[in-house]
Amino acid sequence: MDNPFFNNNGPFKFKEILKQLNLQNDKNNEDLIVNNINDLQNSNSNDVTFFHSKKYKTIANITKASFCITSENLKNELPKECIPIIVENVLVSTSIITSKFYPNSIKDDFDVSVNDIDNTKFNDNVKHGRNVLIGENVSIGKNCLIGHNTIIEKNVSIGDNCTIGSNTLIRNCLIKNNVRILDNCVIGKHGFGFFPTQNKNLRYPHIGIVIIEEDCEIGCGSTIDRGSMSNTIIGKNTYLDNQIHIAHNVRIGENSIIAGQVGIAGSSILGKNVKIGGQAGISGHLKIGNNVEIAGGSGVIKDIPDNSKVMGYPAKNIREFLRENK
Amino acid sequence: MDNPFFNNNGPFKFKEILKQLNLQNDKNNEDLIVNNINDLQNSNSNDVTFFHSKKYKTIANITKASFCITSENLKNELPKECIPIIVENVLVSTSIITSKFYPNSIKDDFDVSVNDIDNTKFNDNVKHGRNVLIGENVSIGKNCLIGHNTIIEKNVSIGDNCTIGSNTLIRNCLIKNNVRILDNCVIGKHGFGFFPTQNKNLRYPHIGIVIIEEDCEIGCGSTIDRGSMSNTIIGKNTYLDNQIHIAHNVRIGENSIIAGQVGIAGSSILGKNVKIGGQAGISGHLKIGNNVEIAGGSGVIKDIPDNSKVMGYPAKNIREFLRENK
Amino acid sequence: MDNPFFNNNGPFKFKEILKQLNLQNDKNNEDLIVNNINDLQNSNSNDVTFFHSKKYKTIANITKASFCITSENLKNELPKECIPIIVENVLVSTSIITSKFYPNSIKDDFDVSVNDIDNTKFNDNVKHGRNVLIGENVSIGKNCLIGHNTIIEKNVSIGDNCTIGSNTLIRNCLIKNNVRILDNCVIGKHGFGFFPTQNKNLRYPHIGIVIIEEDCEIGCGSTIDRGSMSNTIIGKNTYLDNQIHIAHNVRIGENSIIAGQVGIAGSSILGKNVKIGGQAGISGHLKIGNNVEIAGGSGVIKDIPDNSKVMGYPAKNIREFLRENK
Repeated sequence: MDNPFFNNNGPFKFKEILKQLNLQNDKNNEDLIVNNINDLQNSNSNDVTFFHSKKYKTIANITKASFCITSENLKNELPKECIPIIVENVLVSTSIITSKFYPNSIKDDFDVSVNDIDNTKFNDNVKHGRNVLIGENVSIGKNCLIGHNTIIEKNVSIGDNCTIGSNTLIRNCLIKNNVRILDNCVIGKHGFGFFPTQNKNLRYPHIGIVIIEEDCEIGCGSTIDRGSMSNTIIGKNTYLDNQIHIAHNVRIGENSIIAGQVGIAGSSILGKNVKIGGQAGISGHLKIGNNVEIAGGSGVIKDIPDNSKVMGYPAKNIREFLRENK
Repeated sequence: MDNPFFNNNGPFKFKEILKQLNLQNDKNNEDLIVNNINDLQNSNSNDVTFFHSKKYKTIANITKASFCITSENLKNELPKECIPIIVENVLVSTSIITSKFYPNSIKDDFDVSVNDIDNTKFNDNVKHGRNVLIGENVSIGKNCLIGHNTIIEKNVSIGDNCTIGSNTLIRNCLIKNNVRILDNCVIGKHGFGFFPTQNKNLRYPHIGIVIIEEDCEIGCGSTIDRGSMSNTIIGKNTYLDNQIHIAHNVRIGENSIIAGQVGIAGSSILGKNVKIGGQAGISGHLKIGNNVEIAGGSGVIKDIPDNSKVMGYPAKNIREFLRENK
Repeated sequence: MDNPFFNNNGPFKFKEILKQLNLQNDKNNEDLIVNNINDLQNSNSNDVTFFHSKKYKTIANITKASFCITSENLKNELPKECIPIIVENVLVSTSIITSKFYPNSIKDDFDVSVNDIDNTKFNDNVKHGRNVLIGENVSIGKNCLIGHNTIIEKNVSIGDNCTIGSNTLIRNCLIKNNVRILDNCVIGKHGFGFFPTQNKNLRYPHIGIVIIEEDCEIGCGSTIDRGSMSNTIIGKNTYLDNQIHIAHNVRIGENSIIAGQVGIAGSSILGKNVKIGGQAGISGHLKIGNNVEIAGGSGVIKDIPDNSKVMGYPAKNIREFLRENK
């Protein structure tokens, strides 16, 4: 994943990685360089990756990563060139190492770096309301508007002809041209991702960002969380109504229309030309095809193929649902 | 519809209307005056109206409008005095002409006209918090309170004894006496109405307003969109809980009680004394009778007669639902 | 109930209580002292309580209250030492007397007592954003952060190591150590509790508070209402995702995980280690056991015993639901 915003604190020597995980040193390799952490598919040589489920065996077989956090019973699936790092809990260890590379990606504290827009270079170029705050590493294109009390925290890039409403917060977000984000939104905070423990849940890092493609509209009071290891993406010319929640790692295709109060759980991937009625919900880790229509109020709990119309909870073929529920 | 807030840029000559739609001029009528655009029922002589579905045939038969945007196969339903304007897509052409009359009704950009309340005539009369902003064409009655960071944008009329919370945005809204609007609401933005196209959706104008009658309460984090061609109306003494979404053109009768996270889609009309449980949803363009009770979590997808109690998705008679779902 | 925040305007003489309810004086007892109003269970001697339903007979039998607002047909359930106050509508009369003791608990107007944090003692100790406002009777522990535009109104106690996001409002709330409340929340407003009448609903007082125990996280755009006669409580190490609504008097146990857009209606009590999927709803006055799992989108309308997994609307055993809905 390209990561335009979070600073990579690496590279580290391999021995530093092992030490962080309280593992015994590996004298033969201790001075090897580890550049970055990435998923199986996107890792390059000298990266460390992670492999925690057989489901990803095919990708693991051909990963380019030089190091892989994994378990005893999965390690043989890795290429011979890839040095396995055997741990008890792969996801927890991955979280620890991700935090080492990207220490600023765990906390989502408010951005102390902000300045009143009147004291920034944007004062003349951006038509803006009162009390607008702008963080570090922010770029704003031509012909943009930003409403009252809105906070553009650090690591935000806004294209041309964009309109941001009032009382909205944005951070870690790439906004393309002609996007309209309405009032009272929160875009780019970390997702609801953590390892539950009885005493104190352990948050894992979110090094992904939110990408909002050209010509999108995001309704009032909506929340779009940034990704953990990948990005949350809203496709070109997709419109979201009010009070919508888009969880981390979700990807929505172009030309989609999503009505009010819809919720999409983490890591689900939606195709293009998808229409979703109000208050529908989509579970996590699902694949919704192109041209799918989901009736308002539906609860989707399994993958939906292209060109389907579904309704109900759990959502099924709409004709079947209506026939059974006359 | 009476339109207290949006400026009518008309009148226009008929030839200007035709030109805007890229239609051939009509030499016989080119200098006729067109005062306004309105729906079939509320148009007066010298107004232009629109007629796009046989469903509205009865009203079309007796419209007083002098001009009507319509299609070849519907034009014969109009009175002889009404000059038809034949177009390919009635709604898109209506949108274009509405924009011509009301150019300020499409965009919902933040209001640059606002002033800090301390610099307005309201500073002495209104008990207010910090950082309150007031736009143009705002009136506020006696004995009102406005909380911190709240923005009353242009075109808002607030009655006596009203309380507006903090972090709330209001525009294009008529608020009667004794109304309480809590924190973090957005009232009066345009609805989720547009013509979908593959490349760039076309927003249509919203020249309606929001009317909140006497003694209402609107809970925290709620959104109430203004109407497109008609108004969104909350009846007298109706209470809304938190995180409710009321879409454009919805009308809710008096003495109704609506619990948290309910959503009502566009153009549905609810009677009086309606009770709706939490998280229930009502589809668009429905008619819900008086004294109706809708159980929490229900999904209403068809009209409901007076005095009914319904539950389920799709919502049906509550006894029947509970018998089937023991 | 211990009430750290609302000022008790009492004690009153018994004759003042009777007069407030437009009841005839009771010459024998008119000068007896009434210290406070409380529920049947928590009342002490010299308190007035209320008893409106046979459901609470067992507790009424042993209440320590010296006075009890009740009805003719319930009065014989009270201990002999307890003087019954016979009224037509117990809840309305209770509301009137609660208002007499706690006149400041009805209205939820914005807090005029706030000061810019820069002008308070917290300026040096609390890392804070721009435009932060702090009310009276606020305490903040060590090592806390408060984001931009956030308003901590009166009667809030914040522990050590807490993070409050931006654009958030908090009032009447006890926040323990290591709590994180994200952006755009409203915590501690009164609940959606009132007596419906045809002309003008009568709000009843909310003298409860919100208690958020150690190590909790509350997601963006969430609302947590304070209790009416008891408190709303979020247990230790419980995590709430975005856009959640927790109504008044709800109690959630420790180590629970609640996904986005869930709503929990008034007075429901949840055990510990409860997991609730996105958009699920729980009706009011229910008891949900420990270790219960509620699937996303479910609608819970009856009590759920410990260790159950439920799904559907109405929610039932998850295996049964999935078998019936293949």
